[in-house]
Amino acid sequence: MFENLVKDIAGYRRPVGFGICRVDLGQLNPDKVLQATYPVVNWKENYETSAVFIRSLFESGEEVNFEEPEYITQVTGEFIDKALETFGEKLVEEAKGKKHRNIQVLKVLQKLFEGEAPSNYRIVFLWEDSEPQSVEAVYLKLYALSQRKAPLRSLNLNGAFKILHNCAWVGNVPIELDYLRENEIELKLRDAYPEVEYVDKFPRYLSHIVPETDNIRILDSAKVRFGAQLAPGTTVMPGASYINFNAGTEGAVMVEGRISSSAVVKEGADVGGGASILGVLSGTNGNPITIGKNTLLGANSVTGIPLGDGCIVDAGIAVLEGTKIYIDPAEFEKIKEVNPDWNVEYKGIFKGVELAGLNGIHFRLDTTTGKMVAFRSKRQVKLNDELH
Amino acid sequence: MFENLVKDIAGYRRPVGFGICRVDLGQLNPDKVLQATYPVVNWKENYETSAVFIRSLFESGEEVNFEEPEYITQVTGEFIDKALETFGEKLVEEAKGKKHRNIQVLKVLQKLFEGEAPSNYRIVFLWEDSEPQSVEAVYLKLYALSQRKAPLRSLNLNGAFKILHNCAWVGNVPIELDYLRENEIELKLRDAYPEVEYVDKFPRYLSHIVPETDNIRILDSAKVRFGAQLAPGTTVMPGASYINFNAGTEGAVMVEGRISSSAVVKEGADVGGGASILGVLSGTNGNPITIGKNTLLGANSVTGIPLGDGCIVDAGIAVLEGTKIYIDPAEFEKIKEVNPDWNVEYKGIFKGVELAGLNGIHFRLDTTTGKMVAFRSKRQVKLNDELH
Amino acid sequence: MFENLVKDIAGYRRPVGFGICRVDLGQLNPDKVLQATYPVVNWKENYETSAVFIRSLFESGEEVNFEEPEYITQVTGEFIDKALETFGEKLVEEAKGKKHRNIQVLKVLQKLFEGEAPSNYRIVFLWEDSEPQSVEAVYLKLYALSQRKAPLRSLNLNGAFKILHNCAWVGNVPIELDYLRENEIELKLRDAYPEVEYVDKFPRYLSHIVPETDNIRILDSAKVRFGAQLAPGTTVMPGASYINFNAGTEGAVMVEGRISSSAVVKEGADVGGGASILGVLSGTNGNPITIGKNTLLGANSVTGIPLGDGCIVDAGIAVLEGTKIYIDPAEFEKIKEVNPDWNVEYKGIFKGVELAGLNGIHFRLDTTTGKMVAFRSKRQVKLNDELH
Repeated sequence: MFENLVKDIAGYRRPVGFGICRVDLGQLNPDKVLQATYPVVNWKENYETSAVFIRSLFESGEEVNFEEPEYITQVTGEFIDKALETFGEKLVEEAKGKKHRNIQVLKVLQKLFEGEAPSNYRIVFLWEDSEPQSVEAVYLKLYALSQRKAPLRSLNLNGAFKILHNCAWVGNVPIELDYLRENEIELKLRDAYPEVEYVDKFPRYLSHIVPETDNIRILDSAKVRFGAQLAPGTTVMPGASYINFNAGTEGAVMVEGRISSSAVVKEGADVGGGASILGVLSGTNGNPITIGKNTLLGANSVTGIPLGDGCIVDAGIAVLEGTKIYIDPAEFEKIKEVNPDWNVEYKGIFKGVELAGLNGIHFRLDTTTGKMVAFRSKRQVKLNDELH
Repeated sequence: MFENLVKDIAGYRRPVGFGICRVDLGQLNPDKVLQATYPVVNWKENYETSAVFIRSLFESGEEVNFEEPEYITQVTGEFIDKALETFGEKLVEEAKGKKHRNIQVLKVLQKLFEGEAPSNYRIVFLWEDSEPQSVEAVYLKLYALSQRKAPLRSLNLNGAFKILHNCAWVGNVPIELDYLRENEIELKLRDAYPEVEYVDKFPRYLSHIVPETDNIRILDSAKVRFGAQLAPGTTVMPGASYINFNAGTEGAVMVEGRISSSAVVKEGADVGGGASILGVLSGTNGNPITIGKNTLLGANSVTGIPLGDGCIVDAGIAVLEGTKIYIDPAEFEKIKEVNPDWNVEYKGIFKGVELAGLNGIHFRLDTTTGKMVAFRSKRQVKLNDELH
Repeated sequence: MFENLVKDIAGYRRPVGFGICRVDLGQLNPDKVLQATYPVVNWKENYETSAVFIRSLFESGEEVNFEEPEYITQVTGEFIDKALETFGEKLVEEAKGKKHRNIQVLKVLQKLFEGEAPSNYRIVFLWEDSEPQSVEAVYLKLYALSQRKAPLRSLNLNGAFKILHNCAWVGNVPIELDYLRENEIELKLRDAYPEVEYVDKFPRYLSHIVPETDNIRILDSAKVRFGAQLAPGTTVMPGASYINFNAGTEGAVMVEGRISSSAVVKEGADVGGGASILGVLSGTNGNPITIGKNTLLGANSVTGIPLGDGCIVDAGIAVLEGTKIYIDPAEFEKIKEVNPDWNVEYKGIFKGVELAGLNGIHFRLDTTTGKMVAFRSKRQVKLNDELH
């Protein structure tokens, strides 16, 4: 039914993502969007709603551009009224709690647009997942990642760093550094200099995301960048941990170490205190690292290769692509058992990269010989029976 | 004298701990206690005060239950008046500064109860140190630990994790995650979404504890969980450090690494940058680790066994229960000298766990052979002359 | 011209540093200066301005002491008026944006001094760089370091720790611990206990410093102490990183590890996740460490010796003064090529300290033999042609 609404709209496309956001603008440059806050994000879903939105824009006189990869326009009172009218009284009435959240957005906006219409609300459509062109588009994608609507590493974020502005963050509010520079004297003398909590292009995960279940814990908001993804059951401790954007967990994981950009950690794994999973920007030759299920990264270990399920990296050791690792012939056979697709000849010493992604390996530094060794871990590995 | 007050109260018991607290209740579920803030905590002390409290409850019509392990009831204006009356004018007058702090609590409450009586103050008694049954009881015990009224590891905290609610913390205020979920759209659109600093079941040490001396330093409040214990002279740096609840220091210690759950570090020790002391939940088979006096844990080292006094763990190495460690025969003798109770045969290579708790050992990775070695450290070890 | 103003002032000296600050005083002890906030700091510059300031003090009846190493006095309305008058209408008019910032300070102060004169502004002169005697002097020097007006390690900060007071910091505001102790009961019961973010003698870098360029990023304000120095292009990640006062970067550096007191990292270097550069107070025998250009410190590595340009320390290893490191004869020759001033005999195994400051070395733990080895890194090293 809703699709009929857009039949007469030339060039109509279904968006991969869309939403309405409130934007924070520059204190000195009001044309600069510093942050976009979305109460609701739609990613490959709710196409009927996008149809209503597009129809309402059309009827309120907006020319929606379907040719560029993304389209952003200011929210107007007319648009809000049209859209609520199109959804109809019944849906608007029902829109509460978890139901019809996009309509809830319109309802709140309608109240905010009574009197003088504010100019800092935007409606954003991404027609395709190409390089983002705007701050609003980058934020929409970061939401899609952090709200687990899009899998990690699945979105095109090329150039995001160039689009976002480096800001001083005071709570959830971004402030232009130039504003602080220009007003430093006055602010300091008047005892009004703000408490700057961080300076970055990205905000923090907790500034935008409500953990989806009550068993997600983040003991320090500084430790998780917006754009990270945390599955239910994930705990992020405050010691040496950190989760970058486009990185995170796919199941319950204890995180006491670093999950660098593009790294993904699976259900039941344990990232020990100070353990470092290298990122695509730091030491993995651009290969993103996945850590398999129930794999344990010991305290202060460093992992520079992907690991399968049920592995153990002993505390304090570094397993990198070039690390030379000895495997005993008997252990080699045991490792092959849980990795039936691993077709290599035995050769005694292997490079780390040659063991990438294998299941059930225990890495250890033998402190009687100084050799790095790999052997079959005592952790269970469940093979996918359908495949083997 | 005070004890006479309770002679006629059936079943009267002296509490192991008691105090009056202000509780934060759920925004959606006002029956849920999210946090309990105690201005004064009594632990195995001030039994006269508890007698007055119990008498006053009795006289204000409360039936105190002595049969369950803990008793909690709402503070009423009548109770406050009765209690102040029972203490008597002289004590009430004197109650200032460090004197009669429980009475000071009553005096402040009396002012707060003028007009409409607030309902968010509780009086809490723990008759014994058994499994806590309530949020108020868990907090009372965490206070006892953090205020150094009870030794680390001495209290029964079983089940505490299940009793506490996971909250979003905005400053010192806990907020139900469901409240944020239900109000996300409105809060975000109105630019009223709070700055969530962490999501956890536990608050931070500094939200409840004033360091007892001016030589305690905590450079980042996120680094010390409530329930941790810090002795005077302890400094916690902001790099990779962390102190969990029921863990901490018993003397002046420089903390630049992690003191995991149940780990205790003694006077003069140094937990180097990124050093990891494993906790009962992570790699020690449930054996809590103590680090002895003047022991040095090098930067990025990992310690998985208890250490005695005057030990050194070199930077970057891991000494775990199963680590194989070579000891030279001459060094073996020197180590025995400072560990007269250590009765073992010499056998060349020892497992880490066999060296647990010994004094004066220096652990090193010999980078000419790859062997982990232990030898007599150059640090002084003071033997207890009375014992030997 | 300005110098003429002070010709008749007996004992006149040019200050090495001076400025006007707002001070935070103790809540209980109003004589205690807890913090000094300078809107503008002058370090070995703007001597004309200091001459005007001194003249204006002189004319407003202050006896400037030139004999002690530092001179501090309260700012008065009379001083402000005299100084603005002496600068003259034209300069005062021009004082905007980046121009005449000291005069801008006076202009703001003149407004603040309308009505009742505040007593918490100070004018501070350091006649020489000797041991600081006051909180205001320590802060002036920390500003000179953090604003890159004085090179790292160049200032006399002896005794600074004793001069600063340990405070509870609530945002940018320092609070005496005794104030919290005395008011704990009232504050907690009234739900007015402040959110203490840290307890330290030093404030944080971002409480006083606006990053000078837009490509400086600090993802967690707790990670950089005031007195640290960050060159443009420096990024400080929130995992295990930390930069102490009188330490920092001299060029664009990615900081994911610890830069301890007195350590300096040069342009293009990379301090990997959890990497530890030892400080003068922790393991370097008091020798401050410099990390050369384009040198890479791997994740969780520990560096206890200075390194030259183009070095690599592999992830997870520790290179300390006493570490025994094997060099192959052929590699020894290659290393000498990029270190023409290094005159040593080949001897197979070298101690870490013997390799201090050399360029182009790659440190690695050979995991087939357990030997720590050093060889010529593949990183480019640019020799200074003028010198060689």
